[in-house]
Amino acid sequence: MNRIAPDALGPTVTIGEILVEIMATSRGDGFLAPTTLAGPYPSGAPAIFIDQCARIGGSAGIVACVGDDDFGKLNVERLRRDGADVSAISVSPDYPTGSAFVRYREDGSRDFVYNIAKSAAALVSLTDEAKALFARAGHLHMMGTAFSIPSLWDVLEHALAVIKGRGGTISVDPNLRKELLNQGQTRARFARMLDAADLVLPSGDELETATGLGDEAAAVAALLARGVDEVVIKRGRMGSSLFAAGGARVDRPAFLVEEVDPTGAGDCFGGAYIACRRLGMPAEAALDYANAAGARNVTRQGPMEGAGTRAELEAFIATTPRVLS
Amino acid sequence: MNRIAPDALGPTVTIGEILVEIMATSRGDGFLAPTTLAGPYPSGAPAIFIDQCARIGGSAGIVACVGDDDFGKLNVERLRRDGADVSAISVSPDYPTGSAFVRYREDGSRDFVYNIAKSAAALVSLTDEAKALFARAGHLHMMGTAFSIPSLWDVLEHALAVIKGRGGTISVDPNLRKELLNQGQTRARFARMLDAADLVLPSGDELETATGLGDEAAAVAALLARGVDEVVIKRGRMGSSLFAAGGARVDRPAFLVEEVDPTGAGDCFGGAYIACRRLGMPAEAALDYANAAGARNVTRQGPMEGAGTRAELEAFIATTPRVLS
Repeated sequence: MNRIAPDALGPTVTIGEILVEIMATSRGDGFLAPTTLAGPYPSGAPAIFIDQCARIGGSAGIVACVGDDDFGKLNVERLRRDGADVSAISVSPDYPTGSAFVRYREDGSRDFVYNIAKSAAALVSLTDEAKALFARAGHLHMMGTAFSIPSLWDVLEHALAVIKGRGGTISVDPNLRKELLNQGQTRARFARMLDAADLVLPSGDELETATGLGDEAAAVAALLARGVDEVVIKRGRMGSSLFAAGGARVDRPAFLVEEVDPTGAGDCFGGAYIACRRLGMPAEAALDYANAAGARNVTRQGPMEGAGTRAELEAFIATTPRVLS
Repeated sequence: MNRIAPDALGPTVTIGEILVEIMATSRGDGFLAPTTLAGPYPSGAPAIFIDQCARIGGSAGIVACVGDDDFGKLNVERLRRDGADVSAISVSPDYPTGSAFVRYREDGSRDFVYNIAKSAAALVSLTDEAKALFARAGHLHMMGTAFSIPSLWDVLEHALAVIKGRGGTISVDPNLRKELLNQGQTRARFARMLDAADLVLPSGDELETATGLGDEAAAVAALLARGVDEVVIKRGRMGSSLFAAGGARVDRPAFLVEEVDPTGAGDCFGGAYIACRRLGMPAEAALDYANAAGARNVTRQGPMEGAGTRAELEAFIATTPRVLS
């Protein structure tokens, strides 16, 4: 039933931006005046994903680039501490580690000041270390954020061929704003990601972005018809649902938590789900760990500060009430 | 006696980096873990200088480059509010505004994480707006920090020729680490700065960096013999001293303040001194305003948060005790 390659085949690998995040501690509009901040927090969607994947006990590695500064060290040390393979994180001698300043507005939306395009994060390339990591990898996780880094596509193409070639599997988190699909080759490349996917993990309107279909059942059916084996929908406070190729559906409720900082919830969900499935857990248990990973992470300030070990997530599951549907 | 060109000839102009500064609010080593921060504060030595120069009532303008982000807007709006000519600040569509993260160590020294070289700050160039500003300028203030931006020298050379050509004068703040003198053409260019200078404002060991002489009297004599008209030594808590070409010396005591953040004191001193001299004040009064500007600035967190208007500095002078020598 579970097509996703077992952990024993080699690490789950992702490719993309490592950032530091600096958060305003007060709500308001942007960064036009001095305010109180907290940071630097290790961040970047692929980094959050892979940290949770490693922290829960899955084999995990990342291909990325940081600057030769404290912000790069902070990220690499966090990933190393949590058990991720950091051998393919290169260090730019010239460019700074990528950064994101984030401030919540009164209405809950967010203002950002990013430095990604002109940071080390944009310098991901097919290094010898990256090639070596792909050559021993068992699973590739691709994220829609990849399209923010032009040089990244060639690395993804290489990884896809190598990892599929050795029997590995592919997951896609389509966290991509719809508007971006119309830029350059993004739509064609995004379609190529989905064609290669064994597992797709959309949230919010990403299912529609991925399929062009507004109806959930129709969109899921379209993905499964395309060859995807599992569609896992992340519904936040509404829990999550697995739709499998054979027609099976599993729904699991969310955990009831006090949200401190929603950043990283979806990435933690994905990292936990994929690690658990690759470690051989049934879908129901994997969804519970994934729901717990996302929920626990939002109880902490910082994009990956709440990522949990297996023991931490088990304690969380045992003590946290579920949202009643 | 006062060779420095009057304010009526046109604005004091400087060239160089505009940055945001993010300050750790606790002491410690670097940025290897999340901590509490404050910022973004408008910063960059040339920006602090020109802000104080404008704020006290001198005509003032700056040639610089910021990113198309809140950090750039924050700086430009502060300078505009305080009366500086911001017409020659260009906006890069690609690169972020320069930044400096600063943390004080327990021993009072500082750790930095900079992004200047790969930021908009490094993109200063001889735009039409810069040429127009130089063409109406009355004074050029050059800073040793200029050597951190390779493209800046050609702009300085142009400004020097144009402003000298129309009867303007030149000041140099040699805030340059001695080690940098041995890089590339820095020593020759630094010498060219000093050869052109009417006014030099060193602090700490910068007098020795500028002259190669450890003895203050000998170093001052060497600068005056080189054609400098005024050497103003910034002594921090020990006040300041003017040595003039004719042999006159004026010493003025510092103000007694509780230091919150020393960043920017020397730049505020310089901005106030040059503005006051160009507005026709005698040396003694200019030194008092300059001492007050530096002292007031260190009582506020943030590199230029304490820059004072003339009225604010007069109130400060009237109410702040002097350091007894």
